[in-house]
Amino acid sequence: MEKWFGELQTDDVMLSMKYSKHILHKKSRYQEIDLIENKTYGKVLFIDRTFQLTERDEFIYHEMLAHIALFSHEKPVNVLIIGGGDGGLARECLKHNIEKLYLVEIDEEVVNVSKDFLPGLSSSFNDSRLKLFIDDGAKFVKKVGEKFDVVLVDSTDPVGPASALFEEDFYKNIKNILSKNGIVGTQSGSPFLYPEHLKKAFFNMKKVFGYVDVYAATVPTYPGAIWSFTFASDEIISRKRNLNFKTEYYNEKLHDCNCRPNFINSIINQ
Amino acid sequence: MEKWFGELQTDDVMLSMKYSKHILHKKSRYQEIDLIENKTYGKVLFIDRTFQLTERDEFIYHEMLAHIALFSHEKPVNVLIIGGGDGGLARECLKHNIEKLYLVEIDEEVVNVSKDFLPGLSSSFNDSRLKLFIDDGAKFVKKVGEKFDVVLVDSTDPVGPASALFEEDFYKNIKNILSKNGIVGTQSGSPFLYPEHLKKAFFNMKKVFGYVDVYAATVPTYPGAIWSFTFASDEIISRKRNLNFKTEYYNEKLHDCNCRPNFINSIINQ
Repeated sequence: MEKWFGELQTDDVMLSMKYSKHILHKKSRYQEIDLIENKTYGKVLFIDRTFQLTERDEFIYHEMLAHIALFSHEKPVNVLIIGGGDGGLARECLKHNIEKLYLVEIDEEVVNVSKDFLPGLSSSFNDSRLKLFIDDGAKFVKKVGEKFDVVLVDSTDPVGPASALFEEDFYKNIKNILSKNGIVGTQSGSPFLYPEHLKKAFFNMKKVFGYVDVYAATVPTYPGAIWSFTFASDEIISRKRNLNFKTEYYNEKLHDCNCRPNFINSIINQ
Repeated sequence: MEKWFGELQTDDVMLSMKYSKHILHKKSRYQEIDLIENKTYGKVLFIDRTFQLTERDEFIYHEMLAHIALFSHEKPVNVLIIGGGDGGLARECLKHNIEKLYLVEIDEEVVNVSKDFLPGLSSSFNDSRLKLFIDDGAKFVKKVGEKFDVVLVDSTDPVGPASALFEEDFYKNIKNILSKNGIVGTQSGSPFLYPEHLKKAFFNMKKVFGYVDVYAATVPTYPGAIWSFTFASDEIISRKRNLNFKTEYYNEKLHDCNCRPNFINSIINQ
C-alpha cells in the first residue's frame, strides 16, 4: 500500500504527498503534529493535518511575513513573534540588524520537533538575540510590559486555538505594546478559498489602527495557494530601507508595487 | 467508496478532488479527456489526467494570458489563438474591440466537450468574429498566409503533443505572421516545479524576438500554483490601453508593475 499524507483544503479538495518516511506523529496538549519526508518538498510539517511548512516552499511564507513589515520600519530594534515555533520566521527576522527578538509559542512540542528535525529553521534558536517563551500569545501581549517596533503573528488559521489571534481585542493589546511608528503583521489566510479569514483580520485591524494594508504571495502547499498577509500601523506603511541580504522570493519591487489581483481587492473593498 | 479524481503534480505530490459526478471520460485521437463535477471548483476538465481548467479558477489563467498581450497592443484587430479549444481564452479576447479571431485547436473533442458542458467558456464560439480551425497549430502558422496583431499559445505542457509549441522554429513561424509591433504570448508552465519549461519558452523566444518578458499569476489548481506566461515582440512590451471592462484578476497595476518573486527572476537570469 502506498503511503500518502495530505490536507483536506476543503471537504472535497485534497493536496497529498507520498512519504518515504513518516518521521513523527504525536499529540501534544494542543494539537496533532506530523512530520513526513517527501522527495519533492523535503520534510513536511503538519499540524492537525494541515500543511504548516515544507522545506522547499517555506521561504515564501516566512520571507513575505517578515520582510514586508521589517523593511517598512526605519530601524526595528525590538521584535515580537506570536507563534512561529518552528523558527522559520525568526530566521528571517534575525537577518535584520535587530537587538531583541521575543518568540511566544503556545506549544513547546512544535519547537522540539523543529529542533530535532528542521535545523534550517530551528537554528535561529541558537541566536543570542532570540528569547523563547512557551506561553499563550493572546495572554502574553497583555502582560509583557515592554514595547516592540514590529510584532508578527505567525498563527494557524482562525478556527480552534488561534481564533483569538484574529480578534479586535488582540489587536488592541498589540497596539498597546507597539512603539511609535510600530508595525503589526499577520498571516490572514487564503483569500481564494476562505476570504472570511482575510476579512476578519483586515476589518478588525481597521477598528484599531489608522492604516491597514494587505499583501499576497503564492505558497504552493497552502489551500488555494494564494496567501494573504495583513499589516497595520498608525502611520502609512511603505518601504523605508533597502534589501541588504539574499532572498528567494521577496524583493524591493514586489514590496513597493504591492500588486493584488482584483478578487482580493474586492474582499477588502478597495 | 469515495470518488476522487486528481493530478500527480510530480510523482509524489497530488491534488485531487472528490466528484459528485464523473460527467465524461473519453479517449480522443490525441488524448484522454475527463470532466468531473466538484462542489468547490464546479466543473473540472482534465486532459491526460492533468487539470486543464476548473469553472472556479479558470478566469485567472485566461485573463492573464489574454489581457497582458492585448492591452500591450495599441489596436489589436486580428488575433490568433493556438490551442484553447475550451473557448475560455477566446472569451477574454473577444472582450477587446477586435475584428477577427482565429482559433486553431488540434482536438475537436475538446471543443465538443466544452460546447456540451462548459457554456461559460464555449459561448465564445457563437461570436461571429471567431473562426474555428481543427488543425495542428505548428503546421497552421506555416501555411495561414495572413498577419496577426496578437498570437496567443494556450497549449498543454511541453511534453507530448504540445512540445513543438515551445521550439525556436515555431516562434520563427509565428514571427512571420505577426504584423508590425505584433505580440506573441504563451503559457510557459510552473516555474516552481518545472523551471525548465519556462526556460525553454523564454530562451527560445529570445533567439527570435528582440524583447521577451515573463509574467506570473497564481492558478490554485495548477502544479506549484505559480504559473508563468512569456510574451515577446520586436518592440518593448508595455501597456498601451486602459482596462475598459470588468475583470476578476487582471488589473492595470498588476500589468504595469509586473512584480516577480526572485526565484522566477533567477530562472530567466534577470
